[in-house]
Amino acid sequence: MSYQLYYWPSIQGRGEFVRLAFEAVGVAYTDVARAGTAGGQGLPALLRFLSDTDHGLGRAPFAPPFLKHGSVVVGQTAAILLYLGPRLGLVGKSEASRLWAHQLQLTMADAVTEAHDTHHPVASSLYYEDQKSEALRRAHDFRQTRLPKFMHWFEKVLERNPAGAARGGPYLVGGRLSYADLSLFQLVDGLQYAFPVAMKRVLKHAPRVAALHDRVAQRARIASYLGSERRIAFNEDGIFRRYPELDG
Amino acid sequence: MSYQLYYWPSIQGRGEFVRLAFEAVGVAYTDVARAGTAGGQGLPALLRFLSDTDHGLGRAPFAPPFLKHGSVVVGQTAAILLYLGPRLGLVGKSEASRLWAHQLQLTMADAVTEAHDTHHPVASSLYYEDQKSEALRRAHDFRQTRLPKFMHWFEKVLERNPAGAARGGPYLVGGRLSYADLSLFQLVDGLQYAFPVAMKRVLKHAPRVAALHDRVAQRARIASYLGSERRIAFNEDGIFRRYPELDG
Repeated sequence: MSYQLYYWPSIQGRGEFVRLAFEAVGVAYTDVARAGTAGGQGLPALLRFLSDTDHGLGRAPFAPPFLKHGSVVVGQTAAILLYLGPRLGLVGKSEASRLWAHQLQLTMADAVTEAHDTHHPVASSLYYEDQKSEALRRAHDFRQTRLPKFMHWFEKVLERNPAGAARGGPYLVGGRLSYADLSLFQLVDGLQYAFPVAMKRVLKHAPRVAALHDRVAQRARIASYLGSERRIAFNEDGIFRRYPELDG
Repeated sequence: MSYQLYYWPSIQGRGEFVRLAFEAVGVAYTDVARAGTAGGQGLPALLRFLSDTDHGLGRAPFAPPFLKHGSVVVGQTAAILLYLGPRLGLVGKSEASRLWAHQLQLTMADAVTEAHDTHHPVASSLYYEDQKSEALRRAHDFRQTRLPKFMHWFEKVLERNPAGAARGGPYLVGGRLSYADLSLFQLVDGLQYAFPVAMKRVLKHAPRVAALHDRVAQRARIASYLGSERRIAFNEDGIFRRYPELDG
C-alpha cells in the first residue's frame, strides 16, 4: 500500500512535518497535490476530499494535511504522525514512548498555531496587511513570552534525557531518532526563518535545541531532501513568514 | 491504580473534557488541584509538576491538564483522552475507530483554541480589556467564518454515520458513545454559553449536533454530574466567556 499525502502544493506548512518523516527514512510517498492532474492527482484531488459531495468517504477530514494509506484516511498532523510513527520506525515500541512523542508533537502543534497567528491574529481569511497592527502586538508577546517558554521546555526535555548521545543524540524520546526530533527541527527551522533576531537570542538559552536542529539537518537523507526540489522554500504564504517588523 | 487529573481548580477549561470522560462512566478520579492541600494535593501539587526543579519526573508536561496514572504522566487534552479512551471503554477497539475519535478530538481542540482567542487574540498574559478592539475583530470572524465551518463539519460527520440511532445515537464514531461525543457536548455547551446568539443561528443548520449535545446532557451520569458541585460553572476566567459585545 502506498502513502498518499494531501497538502497544499506551494507551502511547507503543516504538511512538512509529514514529508520530513517520509524523507528521513527514505520511504516512498506521493505528494498528491503536487503531482500531475493527468493521473487524477494535483490540487483537484485534494479539493475533492474536502467537498461536501459524496465521495464514498464517510470520514472526510476537516482540513489538510491528511494521509491516505489503503482504506485509511487520517487528518490532523499529529494524528498522522501517531499513525506513521510505528510504521516508519520513527517511534519506540512502548505505549509510554509513543504517548510522549505524541505529546511533544501536540505541543509543537500549539507552537505552530501560535507562530501562524503572529501574522494572522484576527482571521486567516483576511490579508496580513489588514491585521498588521494586531499582528505587531501579538508578535511582540510571542517573541517575549511564548517563544522562550516553548524553547525552554524543549531544552529541559533534552536536558533530562541524555540517552543516545553516543548514537547521534541526545534525542527527545529515549535513545534514538523519533518523528518528534524531525518535527522540532522543522519548528526551529521555521522560527529561524520567521524570527531570525528573536530566535538567535532565545536559542542562546536553548543550546540543546539548537544542536538538535543542526544534527537533524545534517542527517544524510534529510540533507539530501533539504537540497532537493522536493523541499519547498519558506515563503510568505506559509505558516512561518519573514515580516521583519514582527521580529526583533 | 488511581487516576489523578491535574488542572486549574476554578475553571472548566480544557480539563473539563477529561472530567467528562470519567464522569460519563462513573470511574473514580482525583481532581488534584481541587483537593485539600492537607493531603499533599491542591494547587501546590499542580505547580510543583510545572516547576523546573527536579521532581523525579523526566517527562514533565508543558501545561495543564495532565493525567497521572501510576508511573504514567500524560499531558495535552487529546493525548489524555487517547490514553483513557480504551481504558474507560469510551472508544472502539479498532485502530481506525481510535484514530477517527482522536482526529475529531484534535479538531475540537483547534476549535477550543480559536474560541479562547476570540477574547485573547493578542496575548493570554494580558487582560481582555487590554485587547478588546482586537477581540471584537477576531470574534466577528469566528462567528461568521470559523464557527459555522466547525459546526457544519461535525454535522456532516453525524449525517454520514447514522449507526446507533436505536441505541441512543447517532454518535460521532461507530454505533456507540465515545469520548468524542462527550467532547462535542462540551464544545457546544461552552460555545452556547459564550455565543448564545451566534450559536442559535448556527445550530439551526446543524440539528444533529444540537441533538447530540442534548442527548449527552440527558445521560443519567452526565445529568447527575452537571447538577453537582463537581461541575464548575462557566465563568469569565475560562476558555468560554460571555462577553456580549463578542456575540451577535
